[in-house]
Parts: sequence; structure tokens; C-alpha cells
Amino acid sequence: MIILGIDPGYERLGIAILEKNKTDKKERVLYSECFKTKASLEFNERLFLLGQKVKEVIEKYKPEVLSIETLFLTTNHKTVMGVAEARGVVIYEASRAQLKIFEVSPPQIKIATTGYGKADKKDVMKMVRMLVDIDKDKKSDDELDAIAIALTAFAHLKF
Amino acid sequence: MIILGIDPGYERLGIAILEKNKTDKKERVLYSECFKTKASLEFNERLFLLGQKVKEVIEKYKPEVLSIETLFLTTNHKTVMGVAEARGVVIYEASRAQLKIFEVSPPQIKIATTGYGKADKKDVMKMVRMLVDIDKDKKSDDELDAIAIALTAFAHLKF
Repeated sequence: MIILGIDPGYERLGIAILEKNKTDKKERVLYSECFKTKASLEFNERLFLLGQKVKEVIEKYKPEVLSIETLFLTTNHKTVMGVAEARGVVIYEASRAQLKIFEVSPPQIKIATTGYGKADKKDVMKMVRMLVDIDKDKKSDDELDAIAIALTAFAHLKF
Repeated sequence: MIILGIDPGYERLGIAILEKNKTDKKERVLYSECFKTKASLEFNERLFLLGQKVKEVIEKYKPEVLSIETLFLTTNHKTVMGVAEARGVVIYEASRAQLKIFEVSPPQIKIATTGYGKADKKDVMKMVRMLVDIDKDKKSDDELDAIAIALTAFAHLKF
């Protein structure tokens, strides 16, 4: 099974494609990226570019599931509306391609990666690097978040 | 010029298509609808359906501009995230079809329709019915809002 993990945002969109088949011991990262859009662009152009990026990734890797983080109003108030709009576009592109949508909450991500629902972000990042083979080149936090979000879906979905 | 006015929502999406050409004295409503999605559907299906609806309307009427209301966090906290996601999908479909995006605030709508920035909703609805010819059959508030939003764009955009 191939899962697309998304850490939603319009400034930085964390994208990861993970694969795990029945005989695999662990998930493999087929691709990950922190997709950025320039602040100098109009907001609708940023939405357009990130939607097209998600569309391209879906067409290339053909995931069956989109795993995406839920958003809460407690998040940064200044940007949360824009992030929600970006999240809507991601879910829309995934629905157009008939992916199943799996929403994961921050505590679910923490439990799936570290076993502890109140783990801090650093622990999650550390565990992600242990759970999957990641090139030693730097991966951004947004990419690692997207990988963690995809791993959480693998932990919950039955084969 | 043809303008698409949208009152964003995922439960009820107000949609209006208005036209006004240089020689016209007033705007004409070519189409309006309150598009509803069922609460029994999953959220991503609702997003999908409303995006497809917007796409169809754009393909049929070929508007040049999308006029859409801005969202504020002061709005109903329970639904505002879902409305933001729906708004993202509407802007995305409009961007895909290369429409110009024009965002209007509630005071702008009030001024454009009634001349008074603190007018109440009833006054706006009343003025909308006077500004454009609307069939006497009932139009929902969401449709009238979408018409008001499109009228606001006409008031601001230069020909």
C-alpha cells in the first residue's frame, strides 16, 4: 500500500509518499519534499501551485490513501485560516483522484511514532528517523512531519 | 463582464452569476442557487461536490472574476475551519479556470448595496432585491448574499 502524508500549509507544505507491502518489515519513503510557495505571490496563486503539486505527486505515485493532519483553532490564529484553505485544496485534489482520506490528530501522530501521546516534537522527529530509512542529507521538519503523518495512517489502517 | 459571486460554506454554498455590460444600466442575474451538501456525507465528499459544482458553473457561464467574501475568525468557531476549507476549494477552482479573484469584506458589501457600512443583514437583502430584478419566487438568503457579493465586485472593478 502507498500512502500520501501531508503536513498542511500554504507557505510550506510537507509532502511524503510511503510504501509498505504485506511482506515488508517497515515502511519505505519513496519521496518527500517541503514544497514552498513564495510570499510575494497572491494567495490564490499559492493555493493553485500547491494543489497542482499535490495532483502531480498523486499522478506519479498513485497512493490509495491521503493521511492529513487535523487543524485546530488553537493553532496560530494569524495563519490558521490560510492553512485551512490549503488543507481544503489538498483534500479536494485527493478526493478528485478517489483516494481515501484519513485524518490524524497530533496525539495520534505522537502515539504512532513514539508510543507516548504527549511526546514533544523533537522526540517525534528522532523516532521518524529511526522508523524509516532516511538519507542522511537534511530533511526539513515539514518533510519529517509528513512522513510521521503517513506512518500514523499505516499504524491505523488494516491491510 | 460576467462575475461569479460566492458566499462560502460547505453546508450551503451561495452561488450567483451576474452580468453587466458597458451599455447596461444595471446588473442582471443570469443564475443563482443555494447549493447544499448533505450532512450525512463525509466532509471530503462535500468538498468534492461543491468544487465540482463551482467548476460546472464556471464552465457554463465563463465568468472573468470570482468575488468571494473574506472569512474572519470571529465567525462561528464550530464551523469556520470547514468554511475556510470550502473557500479554499472555490478559490482553487476559480484559479484553475484563470478567473481574477476579488475578495470582499462584510463592510464593503454593506456599503456597495446600501451605502452604509453598518447596515444590518435585512437592509442588505432588501436592497439586493431592488438593485437587480429577481423573480418573485423565494430566493434563499445564501443566494441573495452571493448576489450582493457579486454586486460589490461590480461596484469596485473598473471596466
